[in-house]
Amino acid sequence: MSECIFCQITQGKAPANIVYEDQYVMAFLSNRPVNAGHTLVVPKKHYENIYDIPEEEVAYLFKIVKRVALAVKDAVSAEGIRIVQNNGEVAGQVVFHLHVHIIPLKPHNRCNDKVYRNKPNQCSDEALMEDAQKIRRQLSVR
Amino acid sequence: MSECIFCQITQGKAPANIVYEDQYVMAFLSNRPVNAGHTLVVPKKHYENIYDIPEEEVAYLFKIVKRVALAVKDAVSAEGIRIVQNNGEVAGQVVFHLHVHIIPLKPHNRCNDKVYRNKPNQCSDEALMEDAQKIRRQLSVR
Repeated sequence: MSECIFCQITQGKAPANIVYEDQYVMAFLSNRPVNAGHTLVVPKKHYENIYDIPEEEVAYLFKIVKRVALAVKDAVSAEGIRIVQNNGEVAGQVVFHLHVHIIPLKPHNRCNDKVYRNKPNQCSDEALMEDAQKIRRQLSVR
Repeated sequence: MSECIFCQITQGKAPANIVYEDQYVMAFLSNRPVNAGHTLVVPKKHYENIYDIPEEEVAYLFKIVKRVALAVKDAVSAEGIRIVQNNGEVAGQVVFHLHVHIIPLKPHNRCNDKVYRNKPNQCSDEALMEDAQKIRRQLSVR
């Protein structure tokens, strides 16, 4: 069994609040959200970072990132969206399976240091499930 | 004349340290770098944010982002790369022409608040030109 938690999630061997899935890509809520609706988009195939993934696959990945970002924005009524993709521990990468953060922002968490202090809000399982449901609803109407 | 500074740059009406250019996309150094080699990748066509750009165009944009990110990493011997794309003032967007930040990181600027405090290093024109030259050299060998 793979030790990569994101491989486990994409293979259905670990739980996650999935909001999108197709043959190549999966999107699910971060379990350490900096805000409600904080979503991760990953290729199903394991690549450690953006250096390793082929150009055509990174292109497809970000096509889906855009689609999911719009859904997240509407689902949580965000005023802005920050998209972040970290490569290497020095850049803040914690899980070494390429992933893209979609972080919804509202005026009360105006772009400030707090967002990047890695002190995510505590979110209950119920709150995460509810957020995922809202995002899935947005995606199904597009 | 367009008032958008990035449109002016892509149209050759304002100066920039360009590291990559094709029919659809341009990459140039940030003039407010958080680190040496901090590069912006933009679509030549004006879109305010990721919500507005068509999926096929955002896919192409990020294909080039990956290519430029590798070049930046090698050009400045970065240990990590952070890729950031901000949508909306609340997310830290300052220029309202869609752009993707490629931010090289080294151990001494380990992912910390500093990087996001919007107090960019002061870089001389000469230093910027030299960084751009290094990145162009990397791109031409790929």
